[in-house]
Amino acid sequence: MESYGADRREGEGEGEEEMVAPEGSEMRRRSAAAAAAKEVETREGNGEAAASTMMSMSVERVFEGKRVPGWREQLTLRAFVVSFVLAAMFSVIVMKLNLTTGIIPSLNVSAGLLGFFFVKTWTAALDRVGLLKKPFTRQENTVIQTCVVAAYDIAFSGGFGNYLLGMSERIASQTTEANDPQNVKDPQLGWMIGFLFVVSFLGLFVLVPLRKIMIIDYKLIYPSGTATAHLINGFHTPQGAKLAMKQVTTLAKFFLISFAWGFFQWFYTATDSCGFQAFPTLGLKAYANKFYFDFSTIYVGVGMICPYIVNVSLLLGGIISWGIMWPLINNKKGEWFSADLSPTSLHGLQGYKVFISIALILGDGLYNFVKYTVTSLIAAVRKDRTSMLPVSDDEALITADRPLSFDDERRTELFLKDQIPQPVAYGGYVLIAVVSIVTLPHIFPQLKWYYILVAYIVAPVLAFCNAYGCGLTDWSLVSAYGKLAIFTIGMWAGASHGGVLVGLSACGVMMSIVSTASDLMQDFKTGYMTLASPRSMFVSQVIGTAMGCVIAPCVFWLFFKAFKDIGLSGSEYPAPYAIVFRNMAILGVDGFGSLPKHCLTLCFVFFAAAIVINLIRDLVPQKVARFIPLPMAMAIPFYIGSYFAIDMCVGSLILFVWEMVDKAKADAFGPAVASGLICGDGLWTLPQSVLALAKVQPPICMKFLSRQMNDKVDAYITTIS
Amino acid sequence: MESYGADRREGEGEGEEEMVAPEGSEMRRRSAAAAAAKEVETREGNGEAAASTMMSMSVERVFEGKRVPGWREQLTLRAFVVSFVLAAMFSVIVMKLNLTTGIIPSLNVSAGLLGFFFVKTWTAALDRVGLLKKPFTRQENTVIQTCVVAAYDIAFSGGFGNYLLGMSERIASQTTEANDPQNVKDPQLGWMIGFLFVVSFLGLFVLVPLRKIMIIDYKLIYPSGTATAHLINGFHTPQGAKLAMKQVTTLAKFFLISFAWGFFQWFYTATDSCGFQAFPTLGLKAYANKFYFDFSTIYVGVGMICPYIVNVSLLLGGIISWGIMWPLINNKKGEWFSADLSPTSLHGLQGYKVFISIALILGDGLYNFVKYTVTSLIAAVRKDRTSMLPVSDDEALITADRPLSFDDERRTELFLKDQIPQPVAYGGYVLIAVVSIVTLPHIFPQLKWYYILVAYIVAPVLAFCNAYGCGLTDWSLVSAYGKLAIFTIGMWAGASHGGVLVGLSACGVMMSIVSTASDLMQDFKTGYMTLASPRSMFVSQVIGTAMGCVIAPCVFWLFFKAFKDIGLSGSEYPAPYAIVFRNMAILGVDGFGSLPKHCLTLCFVFFAAAIVINLIRDLVPQKVARFIPLPMAMAIPFYIGSYFAIDMCVGSLILFVWEMVDKAKADAFGPAVASGLICGDGLWTLPQSVLALAKVQPPICMKFLSRQMNDKVDAYITTIS
Repeated sequence: MESYGADRREGEGEGEEEMVAPEGSEMRRRSAAAAAAKEVETREGNGEAAASTMMSMSVERVFEGKRVPGWREQLTLRAFVVSFVLAAMFSVIVMKLNLTTGIIPSLNVSAGLLGFFFVKTWTAALDRVGLLKKPFTRQENTVIQTCVVAAYDIAFSGGFGNYLLGMSERIASQTTEANDPQNVKDPQLGWMIGFLFVVSFLGLFVLVPLRKIMIIDYKLIYPSGTATAHLINGFHTPQGAKLAMKQVTTLAKFFLISFAWGFFQWFYTATDSCGFQAFPTLGLKAYANKFYFDFSTIYVGVGMICPYIVNVSLLLGGIISWGIMWPLINNKKGEWFSADLSPTSLHGLQGYKVFISIALILGDGLYNFVKYTVTSLIAAVRKDRTSMLPVSDDEALITADRPLSFDDERRTELFLKDQIPQPVAYGGYVLIAVVSIVTLPHIFPQLKWYYILVAYIVAPVLAFCNAYGCGLTDWSLVSAYGKLAIFTIGMWAGASHGGVLVGLSACGVMMSIVSTASDLMQDFKTGYMTLASPRSMFVSQVIGTAMGCVIAPCVFWLFFKAFKDIGLSGSEYPAPYAIVFRNMAILGVDGFGSLPKHCLTLCFVFFAAAIVINLIRDLVPQKVARFIPLPMAMAIPFYIGSYFAIDMCVGSLILFVWEMVDKAKADAFGPAVASGLICGDGLWTLPQSVLALAKVQPPICMKFLSRQMNDKVDAYITTIS
Repeated sequence: MESYGADRREGEGEGEEEMVAPEGSEMRRRSAAAAAAKEVETREGNGEAAASTMMSMSVERVFEGKRVPGWREQLTLRAFVVSFVLAAMFSVIVMKLNLTTGIIPSLNVSAGLLGFFFVKTWTAALDRVGLLKKPFTRQENTVIQTCVVAAYDIAFSGGFGNYLLGMSERIASQTTEANDPQNVKDPQLGWMIGFLFVVSFLGLFVLVPLRKIMIIDYKLIYPSGTATAHLINGFHTPQGAKLAMKQVTTLAKFFLISFAWGFFQWFYTATDSCGFQAFPTLGLKAYANKFYFDFSTIYVGVGMICPYIVNVSLLLGGIISWGIMWPLINNKKGEWFSADLSPTSLHGLQGYKVFISIALILGDGLYNFVKYTVTSLIAAVRKDRTSMLPVSDDEALITADRPLSFDDERRTELFLKDQIPQPVAYGGYVLIAVVSIVTLPHIFPQLKWYYILVAYIVAPVLAFCNAYGCGLTDWSLVSAYGKLAIFTIGMWAGASHGGVLVGLSACGVMMSIVSTASDLMQDFKTGYMTLASPRSMFVSQVIGTAMGCVIAPCVFWLFFKAFKDIGLSGSEYPAPYAIVFRNMAILGVDGFGSLPKHCLTLCFVFFAAAIVINLIRDLVPQKVARFIPLPMAMAIPFYIGSYFAIDMCVGSLILFVWEMVDKAKADAFGPAVASGLICGDGLWTLPQSVLALAKVQPPICMKFLSRQMNDKVDAYITTIS
């Protein structure tokens, strides 16, 4: 790092057309930085409080001495080499998990971290022998991360463990219905790659307009993205920045604690119902209704980053759904819906969960979508549409009482500099949609062009909803949107026209867009906070997506050819969600009439409620509005359960108490602690996945039994041992 | 508290002959305090570090403005009224636990705390109406605590759950051997009270000389006593002592955390093998050998107070015994000892555990006893024996590198002021021993006078050993000494002369002395640190013991008459240890020959090893000696297991890291944190016991199963539900 000064000049000499800012303004900023530094020194004398206020005040001041490379500079060959290696590695991991448990952890943090270590080792080695041309910057780091995420994401959203595999003969033969050629399509390397190429890029173009809305206008949090940004900024903090280093140390400490905690927990998790993740913290009865604190440091950290109102909304949603509604509806078993359904059947309780939460989300999302469009149009009409930069705080959904900081200003400035022009974005979307509409029916003859057209008209709204919800709560409900597509498009096609296959392929189209919108938006947040150029990130995502479209099907194809028992339950690769998705598609073709009783009515009620709540939020004064819960946040636990809401409220509580005790310190170190907690556990998912692949299983089950059951079990253990 | 100034003068005006110190010296101290206070102010300006150094420096400076009442003043009527109430309450709790599980938690902290709240409420009420004559002092608080402990201790050491009940017909009829009138004595209120009166006071006189050795000369820690002293000092910290208040807040915070943690744990402890106390932190295999961290905040706190060498010695002892020796010996099952023995049988593995640990303890204890006696005699011969005060640091066993602080000086001064004259102590011991030797054979005709004489000759040494071990590690191995008495005296009497009853009654005599020596020594440590007069404490202990000798048998008698199934296994009051003790006595009469193979040889080896290690410690330079483990500490886990050693090492580790990070803060707040942890969990035992009495059982079992066993159990649960 010591040689950056020299390198920077070298870089500047290369004649890049993208400068950080005009010469003059750079000078101005420089002197402002000097003044700020002086101010810090003075303040430091006044004690810790002032110093920490300063620390929380500005990350970008610390980095001010470092030139931000132009967007082309951020895209280095080494970055893409590393990205490719990591993408391949993560794709293998994700694919294996896809085909075994079907539960995929988020590997974003691992991508950022491993990217850093690979490139850092490489540049440090080069630096030692004096061959380093370009220093490793945080922007490059972000570019690697976003490329890897874009690539390995396809291993999940490509549906190899669910919808795509669900189309196959092998899965179809396990069900009695719709087991006919019209509803079956066996995987082949060729059409899979083609399908992914046609489908996956669309999400990238949806992202372009959303990016500004979510990150600049709505100032959404994207907790994981924020945490990763803190991590990356931490890695690249210039030496000598004493105060910033303190934050980095805090982050590192909590990173290690969180990682170690994840590791420790692992030993006691012999099965899914074992270990701290299944700790009935509030009692067994509450646990049965998914009310428990599951000791997940990730969500405690996320809770510390999210505004209080989000966490409270989540908890409220959890109480309304799992605390009141689901138990009540479950009492109607046999009356409102058949009593002998599987727990995953959309015709039973699960149907209420999926569709009511989607209704709430759609209500909130649509309201905001319409509101945003209308206000933008009005603004555009009123004062021309040149004014891109000035962001009115009115639009920030939840952090409205914070004035624009130096960091925000600087980040916004750079984030808006290298825009992808709107016509390119919209044009790209339309172009790819057209290609897709033309191509897809060739792959799936049952999938008529108008299904795809409708899906592509609706998709941006759903992408908006998911990106918005994810920004608020860190949850991306991809599979819920997928289920919606299965249901609606499948129903439209009908059983006689290959509705099952239509449903599954529509699900793929939808999941791809929706998943891209949320996962890559997290990376845009990271990019925003690390001053990475949106243009370089877009290019990186395009390259990453292209990588993924080739890597993922190839990896799947290897598995599929090597292991003949993929998809057979009880085998080594049961791919449990493949049959679940196919079953959903089979039920879906029956249409809304097949939904459980009153489900549709309830959906309408909650859809309307979401709109009404939003209206109220907008009509009452800001003072009152802050206390009105967010329907989007309330909807997530409807589907997932309340345990993570409790984790997040614990995070809130910690922050709240900390702020009571020492506001300045909490402001300065809170984000570092939260990021450490999120990233540490986030990284643990990597060795955990590797252990799972290597078939190293946890040795112990930490089990929770009621006293009565425990007596019986003890007696049983005595008899068998 | 605001009216103390006036009261103090009133008190002084009452013409008490015990003044804190001569007028002149008090003046000197006052001005020293003023200087110190000034120094503090100056230092405070220099930042937190200096301030915290000061804070850890002196508790007694904070209290310097408060007069220490004379010893008679410390003995108030209200104190004894409160003591009586608490003693009765605790006796009921202890008795019930005696007769149900046989496991008795320490209630010292509860005694101190409840004593404080009762008297404080009373004095505050009086103060409000202007009737308060004597303010409530920390010395009075300590007097209450020591009185209550002395009283309720008899409910345990009186053997109502073990040796005394073990003599009864009801228990005898459950065994086949020694079920004859010669070996049976049914409880009767009369002889029980007589027996206790004759036996219990002896321990108090043993304490008198031991007190100075353990607390002043050896500077032993007595972690619980120290923690309680911090608590009591905290309660009585004068208002305005800003820095001391910070420590009190810290103590209170960790007190609450520790209490809440105890409460939380309770819910998951449906049986003994459930919950955090049975957490196989280091794996199931290590757990089977008692290597695990059991999340007990008490022992983490104790570990923070104990010197590193003690904790390391404990761990080393644990590794040698439970890690190496016991598994090896257990492999010889069927060869060295019969394979079909109960786990509590002294003829099996348990025999090695008890006797080898006792051998180690006796080796260390005897060495120190002899060394102390010899050096005292030499010193007495050389420079007359007037020099009581100057304590050479050479004699402090483990804290030799700390210079005598202001606190130590002041405390030592007051601790040595109100001495009980040595002739009174020795005379008292001999007198009570004679009474006892004359009386006991009337109660137990089988117990010949010479057995008792020998027991009383050996008792001080054993009391020395136990008080010494307890001072180092907080563990009092009363029942191990009891077992030794059962074995040796029982064997001496022989089966044909009522050896079983002799063994049990000798056990009672020994347990009473040994238990008093350790439990009340903890209180003396508390008294030392709260400037309570040893004389007032002695009186309080005498009164408490007298209370206990009446209360405990009466409470037992009530239970015994009310519940006819006491002592019957499977009933509500199984009193499990009664039959265990009787069985030990039955085996004991067979003599040493009945011990398992090589047990006696191993005992001699470890006895000798303890002496050799001590010799080495004394002969090598201090620098090296600090790293040689203490045999006494090593012996405790031989008997108990290593889990608490691991807890204590965790405490050490926390303190070590803290000292690395911020030495000044660790020094200032370490004892407060440790005391909070000890006292919080200590108080939780009270509601826990009450819950147990009220038959409120924890609802959940947190169970730990190996993966294989878990699969079986899951299958079983599925079949029955």
